[in-house]
Amino acid sequence: MPKPARDEKAITPRSEDYSRWYTDLVLRAKLADYSPVPGCMVIRPNGYAIWERLRDALDGMFRDTGHENAYFPLFIPVEFLAKEAEHVEGFAMECGVVTHSGLEPDGEGGLRPKGELDSPLILRPTSETIIWHMYGQWIESYRDLPILINQWANVVRWEMRTRLFLRTREFLWQEGHTAHATADEAVAETLTILDVYRRFAEEWMAIPVLTGKKTEAEKFAGAVDTYCIEALTQDGRAIQAGTSHYLGQNFAKAFDVTFQNESNQREHVYATSWGVSTRLIGALIMCHSDDQGLVCPPKLAPTEVVVVPIGRKDEDRAIVLPVVERLREQLAGLRVKVDADPKQSPGFKFAEYELRGVPLRVEVGPRDVAAGQVTVARRDTGEKTALPLDDNLGTAVRGLLDDIQQALYDRALAFREQSTHRVDSYDEFKQILGDEGGAGLLLAHWDGTTETEKRVQEETGATIRCIPDGGEVEEGSCMVTGKPSRQRVVFARAY
Amino acid sequence: MPKPARDEKAITPRSEDYSRWYTDLVLRAKLADYSPVPGCMVIRPNGYAIWERLRDALDGMFRDTGHENAYFPLFIPVEFLAKEAEHVEGFAMECGVVTHSGLEPDGEGGLRPKGELDSPLILRPTSETIIWHMYGQWIESYRDLPILINQWANVVRWEMRTRLFLRTREFLWQEGHTAHATADEAVAETLTILDVYRRFAEEWMAIPVLTGKKTEAEKFAGAVDTYCIEALTQDGRAIQAGTSHYLGQNFAKAFDVTFQNESNQREHVYATSWGVSTRLIGALIMCHSDDQGLVCPPKLAPTEVVVVPIGRKDEDRAIVLPVVERLREQLAGLRVKVDADPKQSPGFKFAEYELRGVPLRVEVGPRDVAAGQVTVARRDTGEKTALPLDDNLGTAVRGLLDDIQQALYDRALAFREQSTHRVDSYDEFKQILGDEGGAGLLLAHWDGTTETEKRVQEETGATIRCIPDGGEVEEGSCMVTGKPSRQRVVFARAY
Repeated sequence: MPKPARDEKAITPRSEDYSRWYTDLVLRAKLADYSPVPGCMVIRPNGYAIWERLRDALDGMFRDTGHENAYFPLFIPVEFLAKEAEHVEGFAMECGVVTHSGLEPDGEGGLRPKGELDSPLILRPTSETIIWHMYGQWIESYRDLPILINQWANVVRWEMRTRLFLRTREFLWQEGHTAHATADEAVAETLTILDVYRRFAEEWMAIPVLTGKKTEAEKFAGAVDTYCIEALTQDGRAIQAGTSHYLGQNFAKAFDVTFQNESNQREHVYATSWGVSTRLIGALIMCHSDDQGLVCPPKLAPTEVVVVPIGRKDEDRAIVLPVVERLREQLAGLRVKVDADPKQSPGFKFAEYELRGVPLRVEVGPRDVAAGQVTVARRDTGEKTALPLDDNLGTAVRGLLDDIQQALYDRALAFREQSTHRVDSYDEFKQILGDEGGAGLLLAHWDGTTETEKRVQEETGATIRCIPDGGEVEEGSCMVTGKPSRQRVVFARAY
Repeated sequence: MPKPARDEKAITPRSEDYSRWYTDLVLRAKLADYSPVPGCMVIRPNGYAIWERLRDALDGMFRDTGHENAYFPLFIPVEFLAKEAEHVEGFAMECGVVTHSGLEPDGEGGLRPKGELDSPLILRPTSETIIWHMYGQWIESYRDLPILINQWANVVRWEMRTRLFLRTREFLWQEGHTAHATADEAVAETLTILDVYRRFAEEWMAIPVLTGKKTEAEKFAGAVDTYCIEALTQDGRAIQAGTSHYLGQNFAKAFDVTFQNESNQREHVYATSWGVSTRLIGALIMCHSDDQGLVCPPKLAPTEVVVVPIGRKDEDRAIVLPVVERLREQLAGLRVKVDADPKQSPGFKFAEYELRGVPLRVEVGPRDVAAGQVTVARRDTGEKTALPLDDNLGTAVRGLLDDIQQALYDRALAFREQSTHRVDSYDEFKQILGDEGGAGLLLAHWDGTTETEKRVQEETGATIRCIPDGGEVEEGSCMVTGKPSRQRVVFARAY
């Protein structure tokens, strides 16, 4: 279907084309831009400021659970990747490979690689291999354990189909890599982090998430078990927002990392790894935003409140600006921006800050001042209310921000509940899913085989997003094969 | 000369081998480790925590001067590098080059690159080219200026001679890239940042630095002018700790970035770039540390105060631990670690925290408690004093930390002054320099030619570190050629 011509600056409505809405929003709100290198993105200041808030909040939660940060090299020797069989299978096809260490004139006015390396290096797609090589140098006895290290870094995966924030060839993330003396302790760590991710998604991003385990087919290459948090976008697709892996002794064996246990015996070390990435920003946009632009939960908003003085005449400004200054004092401690630029109209500013997702706008005009009030507009609902210009104003604004944070969560949760379907036959499953697009989360019985999982994926495009945590035992039969099943799993089309 | 056998765990004394002292210290204090990839390093938690403090302090200073953070891709198209003639000359020989996007079995049990890229990509050695490509998309009119962007990122320069922190093939840094409507504004920005770097070095790192301009031969590839801060290490070498470049219109012309000025004419944009890197940690170590390990200025120390309870017996601990808790309250707001681990002796702990550079150690033993005091040991001087266990203790400890911060600066400044020589003949110059190693800063007249500069470098190993800012006008003659000179410049052997 040909698209209607559209204003260069407008955002395509979600109802018209959700995918285009997303891209328009990211570009128009200056969150990110396409880069001249295919598949990569530029994270612009508006988007990077959100990443910094995400990062700092998560970093605090990692510290509170005993983790330290470190930094390991970008480069990984090719032979390291080969040491863990599943790992190499998972990543070999999408590695950036460095083969040379310089350039020389190619004789046609351009440059060509020179200085071939003795052995090519890959750019980390994830760092288990190089980190476990180092852990091999650092771990001698149980006294050296646990090691609880996280790193914030860029990683490279040569993806073929890319999309701003959601899937790019280079992305920013954190990757935790921990080493433990027992399997129990490592499993507990995996689940501690899963819970950190769940709390972060819910409390900071205002996104309800399902937690659960990935199937064999979907788990991380090299893991014993992969746990995940899964969110639901407004167009009814699932989006994986974070994963926490119990790696057992797989990497310790691949890199021969042993320790002397308390009984003086040598044993291979137990491992976990876990990560979230700039993809979270994509999830944030997809879950909350609207046709006017970004809707950002206050706790992650780089600017929580924008104050817009109204009136360009000198006499208006003389009345309004002192009130704005008082307001600034009352809002001390919040992230406040005052936009008193007389060159732009209030209407222009309103649209701009709506586009950027500032949760609360405070308007102060001469009539407001005369009435002893300010006008406050919520980004999430568009609702405008008058607040008295008194000593309680700061408290009232803080209360509104809390309300917005909660309202976003509640709305997303209600949407997820209304988009979750218990399905008992494959026909019903296919009918609900339709031919394309998202159709919410489908809870269905599955026989536990990769074969059936792949068949469903091929026939419908839906994948098993997770086997829910603590899912109720319910005797049933697989919707496809009729074989017995004891628990429903979550299917969806996914980003 | 053969080295004496030495304890695996000891640090070689500075007087014996400064270079080995440095490496021993970095490894022993677990600041960093060698990586399996030649020329790269692993920054361990003890070192990374210092980097985080450096980064956060600098980041605050950049924000206070109006800058925002963003993130640009790691990959740069080869043809971008070629667009600025000096730039390509400066970096072509030391670029990591990505030529493939996957691996396949090589038939001998290993892996080889597959999926050759249509056009190779380099890993950013610095990001002027890709950023100016993007600025070309973003800048239309003077209303879009200035752009004041910084990024924290890893960069790659294929250095041949590497050394932990000081020079590694991959390193972490920040790079600011700003765009301005006038040359004056861009020059002012360059100097604003130079001053940020100077203040940061002096106020946070406790390192006095010279500021000045680089010579033509030493300036950044693509800059009109490069300004720098230069510090002096304990072995009398100069170390470049940060650079700020005025780029004129060089990159705007290379990427054809123009803007409509207020008179409605199109003009090329003016640029700056500036950066400091993980090299700062190397400078920090080299300037302050001693044969016992790291000496870290309190403002950058991940732990400012370590509290060590003395006495392993239960009755001792019953006396001491409540006092330690009270102490912890009094030190609230400081970065305090209490090490009450009964499995390690106080002596072991003292050595360990000295090695790691904790500025202040507080010992609390039963005898201290009986005497109504605690014992406080300064890392910088080794001096021990008793402080009364009263309500002023918190204030007294804070005062001591301030004293240490100042004392480190004063000591480094005194050393620099005593290591600075005004030299009037080339013979004297060579005599002071000696055959190898550092010999401080030599202030000498120079005729302003690259030829003379190169000759001095070839003959003595000393380079011109900077042409000092506001250097007094002093009519003189070049120590080598006798040609006229109006200002002394700073020579030194350098890291």
